[in-house]
Amino acid sequence: MESGAKRWGCQRKQELNAASATTVRGCLNLIRNNVNKDSSSSVVPLGSGDPSHFPSFRTTSVAEDAIVGALRSGKHNCYAPTVGVLPARRAIADYLNRDLPYKLSPDDVYLTVGCGQAIEVVTAVLSRPGANILLPRPGFPRYEAWCAYNRIEIRYYDLLPDKGWEVDLDAIQTLADQNTVAVVIINPGNPCGNVFSYEQLNKVAETARKIGILVIADEAYDGTVFRSTRYVPMRVFGSTVPVLTLGSISKRWIVPGWRLGWIATSDPNGILQNSGVIDSITGYLNISSDPVTFIQAAIPQILENTKEEFFSNIICLLRECADICYKRIEEMPFLTCPKKPEGSMFVMVKLNVSMLEDVDDDMDFCLKLAKEESVVILPGRAVGLKNWLRITFAVESSLLQEGLARVKAFCCRHAKKQ
Amino acid sequence: MESGAKRWGCQRKQELNAASATTVRGCLNLIRNNVNKDSSSSVVPLGSGDPSHFPSFRTTSVAEDAIVGALRSGKHNCYAPTVGVLPARRAIADYLNRDLPYKLSPDDVYLTVGCGQAIEVVTAVLSRPGANILLPRPGFPRYEAWCAYNRIEIRYYDLLPDKGWEVDLDAIQTLADQNTVAVVIINPGNPCGNVFSYEQLNKVAETARKIGILVIADEAYDGTVFRSTRYVPMRVFGSTVPVLTLGSISKRWIVPGWRLGWIATSDPNGILQNSGVIDSITGYLNISSDPVTFIQAAIPQILENTKEEFFSNIICLLRECADICYKRIEEMPFLTCPKKPEGSMFVMVKLNVSMLEDVDDDMDFCLKLAKEESVVILPGRAVGLKNWLRITFAVESSLLQEGLARVKAFCCRHAKKQ
Repeated sequence: MESGAKRWGCQRKQELNAASATTVRGCLNLIRNNVNKDSSSSVVPLGSGDPSHFPSFRTTSVAEDAIVGALRSGKHNCYAPTVGVLPARRAIADYLNRDLPYKLSPDDVYLTVGCGQAIEVVTAVLSRPGANILLPRPGFPRYEAWCAYNRIEIRYYDLLPDKGWEVDLDAIQTLADQNTVAVVIINPGNPCGNVFSYEQLNKVAETARKIGILVIADEAYDGTVFRSTRYVPMRVFGSTVPVLTLGSISKRWIVPGWRLGWIATSDPNGILQNSGVIDSITGYLNISSDPVTFIQAAIPQILENTKEEFFSNIICLLRECADICYKRIEEMPFLTCPKKPEGSMFVMVKLNVSMLEDVDDDMDFCLKLAKEESVVILPGRAVGLKNWLRITFAVESSLLQEGLARVKAFCCRHAKKQ
Repeated sequence: MESGAKRWGCQRKQELNAASATTVRGCLNLIRNNVNKDSSSSVVPLGSGDPSHFPSFRTTSVAEDAIVGALRSGKHNCYAPTVGVLPARRAIADYLNRDLPYKLSPDDVYLTVGCGQAIEVVTAVLSRPGANILLPRPGFPRYEAWCAYNRIEIRYYDLLPDKGWEVDLDAIQTLADQNTVAVVIINPGNPCGNVFSYEQLNKVAETARKIGILVIADEAYDGTVFRSTRYVPMRVFGSTVPVLTLGSISKRWIVPGWRLGWIATSDPNGILQNSGVIDSITGYLNISSDPVTFIQAAIPQILENTKEEFFSNIICLLRECADICYKRIEEMPFLTCPKKPEGSMFVMVKLNVSMLEDVDDDMDFCLKLAKEESVVILPGRAVGLKNWLRITFAVESSLLQEGLARVKAFCCRHAKKQ
């Protein structure tokens, strides 16, 4: 048998490898592989936004019970409808309608396999030859991956560290042209840990309206806000500009492995409907895989019956961890944190490379840190900012203390002699 | 606010709507919408391959218990690795290794969100400018949808009704050229209900080897075989030709809503590995959504502990239903069934349109049947054969009897006068 690949008509698909190389998952795999397997130290994972491993962050029994009930009924082993089961869509619409000046209906909600598939769907639906999209920098690289795969040109607008990660509105105006299909805004912020103010979001909506582009509002971290800045969902401005809200139960209920997300269309003026975008969403979902039916069936109970105490406890934990993280970072001259985190599970920290002797850049820092200290942190370049770090504080507080102490020890050991 | 779609830079994505229009789901939605809502008759669903609604086809408690155990442990709420959790991959490799002349390792198995996502992944990975693929006619339209979306040209080889749905091997030879990337073979057959013999599959493997193309073996109906023809997995011929096996627990365990499938690579000669196809599979999975983690975690128990009695009971039920279906169809001169079903949950039946007075074609037949008799059947055109019908026999036998009696009544009422 000839083993030449050419003879077999198969080949590497370069676009795919390029798209996948940019993911957080791909980058963290690289860092994790550098951890010294012979080290006696346990690994401190400050890389990904998934605290579900830790006992303090265990999800509520209300959610588990709802899943078990739906499964044991035997009524939800079947295929689900293309757009999701109606009771789940209704419950999500109600959930999203809190404080809205108009009301979403169940028909405005489309269930997806986590927020990840929601990103896949909206980029697929908006792609067309020559299209471009405005993404935040730093941002969430799953957008880059799907835009690359769907051949949408990416144009970056900056989040400004010196202004508490505010949106560079002038850049949005300058970057957009007649081929711009949307602007993505991630709130609460991943990776910056910021929460946009009402005024800021209003300006984004007005700017998008002026240019004539949709807003994709990534609200995966909806509800994980722990300072005084009030969280405002982008869909509040649905009358100004059409908004596609992307969300999921992954972060607020600490169940990223349950893969249940949604797209909600805020379109009181019928722009998405009339233009055919809604049909295209349904079209893509018709050929795609669905979230698990019995998890869909459990959604009404999960959304309606979870006790406020569960959320407030998680918020309390996150605030405590964010405080520890900010304080420890402030103690290290090697790192600079432009803003105390207000939401999500992350903070962006500038790495003062010039103070370190044998560390080339953020990637080198993270690889060496993994090797020497068994601490996993995401290099900033993975989210668009070279020589920054994205640190997850959503872990057990004792582990966070331990991890940051090791970061400090690492920095001191590698510090340039004065 | 201007509501012109153009101003908002959004538009219908025609390719998507075209791709989605061809799906079984899209077509069945159309037929179901034609059922007379005012009719007192209950709906008889002979359209989709999902008997999970019926008490006789309830899944095993072993599977349900495994899911509940994995969920209640609290250990599987987290994100899963790109390719799936190791114990699940190992269990699936063991499951697929029964009767194989060589052994798959866990590294050869990639978990997917049902067999549907497996189709998405392999078409995405094999697509490239100018590529074409050989699909069976009749077949499973999810392939058409993803090939259209991924811009792979489709070339059809026929399954021959007069030869018990054998593969037209000459057609495969004639259709293939240097841009052909793969041939798809679905066994047990959807929609024909046939099971390919060892000799036939061997010939397909030899032909593919001669041309130099991979075989995509869709074995979603693996194990649902109820006559004397022995079911042979295509990967038995992995030394002859590289095989990508697509499978899932959906059909054998009657849990299509659990969305757990896989791609397994049979590549003893390293062709897929060396050509980069394996890297591209991982690359695509890196940016895609995963199957639910706690369902992945339940897979070893589900595959290893399900009692033989559960499977034999389902096989018995399917055989009984297939017998009823074949017998009732034989009694109707309006329908011709070229082969008694041997596997899967479907049978293809020729509609003798010339014997009916006011029925134009298969689509017209199915729409009128839904309206007048509340029976839902898939028109053959949805699977590539105009003026045929795909009938699902995997329903409660009493319901099947009722449904086919209504089909007979419908035909008699619409029969041409002699």
